[in-house]
Amino acid sequence: MKLYEQVATTLKDRIDLGYYHEGDKLPSVRGLSQEHGVSISTVQEAYGLLMDDGIIESRPKSGYYVLKHQAPPELPATSNPAPQPLVVAQWQKLQHMINEYGSTATTKLSLALPDTQASTLKPLTRLMSELSRNAATRVLEYEHAAGSDALRHQIARVMVDSGCRINPEEIIITSGCQEALSCSLRAVTEPGDIVVVDSPSFFGSVQAIKINGVKALEIPTSPETGISLEALEMAFEQWPIKACLLTPTNNNPLGYSMPDKNKLRLLELLNHYDIPLIEDDVYGDLSYTLPRPRTIKSFDTQGRVILCSSFSKSIAPGIRVGWIAPGHHREHIMMVKYLSSLSTPKLTQMAVAEFIAQGYYEKHLRRVRRDYQRDRDAVIGWLKRELPEGTRISYPQGGYLLWVELPDQIDSNELNQQAKQEGISIAPGTLFSASGKYKNFMRICCVNSADPALEKAIKTLGRLCKEMLTRNLLSQD
Amino acid sequence: MKLYEQVATTLKDRIDLGYYHEGDKLPSVRGLSQEHGVSISTVQEAYGLLMDDGIIESRPKSGYYVLKHQAPPELPATSNPAPQPLVVAQWQKLQHMINEYGSTATTKLSLALPDTQASTLKPLTRLMSELSRNAATRVLEYEHAAGSDALRHQIARVMVDSGCRINPEEIIITSGCQEALSCSLRAVTEPGDIVVVDSPSFFGSVQAIKINGVKALEIPTSPETGISLEALEMAFEQWPIKACLLTPTNNNPLGYSMPDKNKLRLLELLNHYDIPLIEDDVYGDLSYTLPRPRTIKSFDTQGRVILCSSFSKSIAPGIRVGWIAPGHHREHIMMVKYLSSLSTPKLTQMAVAEFIAQGYYEKHLRRVRRDYQRDRDAVIGWLKRELPEGTRISYPQGGYLLWVELPDQIDSNELNQQAKQEGISIAPGTLFSASGKYKNFMRICCVNSADPALEKAIKTLGRLCKEMLTRNLLSQD
Repeated sequence: MKLYEQVATTLKDRIDLGYYHEGDKLPSVRGLSQEHGVSISTVQEAYGLLMDDGIIESRPKSGYYVLKHQAPPELPATSNPAPQPLVVAQWQKLQHMINEYGSTATTKLSLALPDTQASTLKPLTRLMSELSRNAATRVLEYEHAAGSDALRHQIARVMVDSGCRINPEEIIITSGCQEALSCSLRAVTEPGDIVVVDSPSFFGSVQAIKINGVKALEIPTSPETGISLEALEMAFEQWPIKACLLTPTNNNPLGYSMPDKNKLRLLELLNHYDIPLIEDDVYGDLSYTLPRPRTIKSFDTQGRVILCSSFSKSIAPGIRVGWIAPGHHREHIMMVKYLSSLSTPKLTQMAVAEFIAQGYYEKHLRRVRRDYQRDRDAVIGWLKRELPEGTRISYPQGGYLLWVELPDQIDSNELNQQAKQEGISIAPGTLFSASGKYKNFMRICCVNSADPALEKAIKTLGRLCKEMLTRNLLSQD
Repeated sequence: MKLYEQVATTLKDRIDLGYYHEGDKLPSVRGLSQEHGVSISTVQEAYGLLMDDGIIESRPKSGYYVLKHQAPPELPATSNPAPQPLVVAQWQKLQHMINEYGSTATTKLSLALPDTQASTLKPLTRLMSELSRNAATRVLEYEHAAGSDALRHQIARVMVDSGCRINPEEIIITSGCQEALSCSLRAVTEPGDIVVVDSPSFFGSVQAIKINGVKALEIPTSPETGISLEALEMAFEQWPIKACLLTPTNNNPLGYSMPDKNKLRLLELLNHYDIPLIEDDVYGDLSYTLPRPRTIKSFDTQGRVILCSSFSKSIAPGIRVGWIAPGHHREHIMMVKYLSSLSTPKLTQMAVAEFIAQGYYEKHLRRVRRDYQRDRDAVIGWLKRELPEGTRISYPQGGYLLWVELPDQIDSNELNQQAKQEGISIAPGTLFSASGKYKNFMRICCVNSADPALEKAIKTLGRLCKEMLTRNLLSQD
């Protein structure tokens, strides 16, 4: 450990132990330098590190302070989905969502879009430009069907941070996490099978289940600890479950990360009932705290867990670079991937491999983790202020999505229609259910709170909600 | 029509009418200039055009000659596949093929790889480099799920050459033709259904059928005119066919293009029996003669034909840019595509759109069409010379693939094993059948005959075949 890291660790320990509280002023640089007998610049570096980690902030001409986080909001209750497998509905709603990608809504809160303007991404486009020029012929050739060796090597390195030791040769590169999930599902299920999902659940997973002719069994899910293990065990006893598809870390849309002991217990259950897990870890690297939470894959010794991830949320979605660590399902999944799209485009694979190898990915993560935590706090503050009483909000520990429970009387599909006329789009809650539940919920993306348009959009949503409540009240009279 | 084009047309007519035969010397530039009363440079441009079209050649210090084509070889017989729907086998063999993409075989004849070193592709990598630099943020964002508007516009333009009038808004961009085929198949079939294919048939299609749980009904196919329409009509009468999947133009592997009257008759049958057609046109733009053959899609007035194509063969495979013109199946196919991979990477879409818009695609096609025709002639000549008596070879009018029927006693899987030890790979015939037929056939890619390695590889294959025949003869004694 370097000297400045030692100093930073000491300070962090003191904050954790409660010597300094949120909003407290920290010792001056000079004072700390004398206390520890280190140089001024070492203390400055230590403070820099703590700022990167979102623990402290610097206030101009005043000094360093322990960062104040938004007090946790009132969370939505644990969900209570239908206790039997369902054919997924909501197809029509998804078509609206597909059109969102090309929509002209000025403030698009509907899609899970990361910050693609971060300066820490500049090296990536520079690398893409250089590789196009200097490795032109290689860029044009087919890539190995499983993906670039260099990239698989770098991904194996990155996965160490989540506790995984994966042989790069196991990894299969895909066109984003959606292809990873879709291929994994196709490999382990057949039409008519039942797959367990959390509830609410990412619409891309739920609908991929539908399109495979598979039924979804939704399990009650807590916004703090994730899927109910008791309910899951009962489901395993009662139904011929073929696979589980879960997002246990920085869940979309609920924001929870399952505690390690729950992850371990889940794995025990899977082992006992001999059921594979498709683990969606696409938001895993965006955890606000370091080290990032472990994946269930990292505890798996049987090759039972199929980890699906991508750089769409942690770098940029337009590059479409995802991957699968397929465990003992590799052969079948590789075949499905090959027959789905042969191989993944080459240039972006080469560029991402270099981006990681040269240390830019880590640097970028440091920046966006801090930014997204600030965005979360800012947007939760505005939601508390602007939305009607009774609104509940998730409190994610990573990523940039909020799951918002509005008062019962509000239909978020209607809210979305009205918001669109003011240039704003949200993701209505019903999309996250197999059966059209969560009518009064919405998912919003809270990236870039520095842009005044975001606060304005939340104000507009608040006004629209209150108008809807008033209308409903009047119509009841 | 420009003046030099008029002169070229006149010359071409004379060649077509038989005034000049293959190998004949053509009039001198000066002579022609006087005859037509046009400038020297106009005649030179006219000759240049005829060279581009692969009709004449220039011999240094001698003049221009009508290009000699290899006399058509003896063609394989019309195929005779099993007359009932089959569950596709050959899974194991395909795994070998998947590994080919990353294989170190020095002469890879197994994969259908275009010439990615052509100088006419330089503008593409230049565009990719420029866009990465100058449109960095846009490159990183999600593309519209259906694909880039600019690219869809350019594709609609290109499709006019095959007789199609398509609204750009109909088109769905995919990750190569394999994703186009896979999504189309998933949209129009369900497990247990029967799909008609030609025979031999591209292994990527046949195996995509398998992985969807669908059965393949293979129809006898002629190497000159394609699928037997009589056999097809009988099949339509006898079986509940759910769809047809065919490559009617520059077929892979057989090389035929169905005559227009057969294409029209096929469409009549499809209309009569109300069956959709998935038309794989991935080699269509590589026809040696202009105008390129029409697609069946171009005759379709009912939105029955789902056209699948890509730039993987006509530009480069590593960019993975394909598309679907889905007819009235658009809504369902769009959903499948979205759930398979959300959207297609953005940079390559932007670059290909510019490549076409700026006229580079047409220029590139002119060049590779000529090159591939030369390659075909050269490789057929070597095959005739080197392979055992009784070998039959396809005679494609476009693309760069040859389908070779070896003497009965030769097992091309064994040949491939032996060839690999000498750094050569071929595609064994059994891959192109649902049931392991075509044991004594192989498909080879004949790009870049100027590279001495290709002729050397054909010599090696010839030697290995002859050794196998001798061994078989001895073992029979």
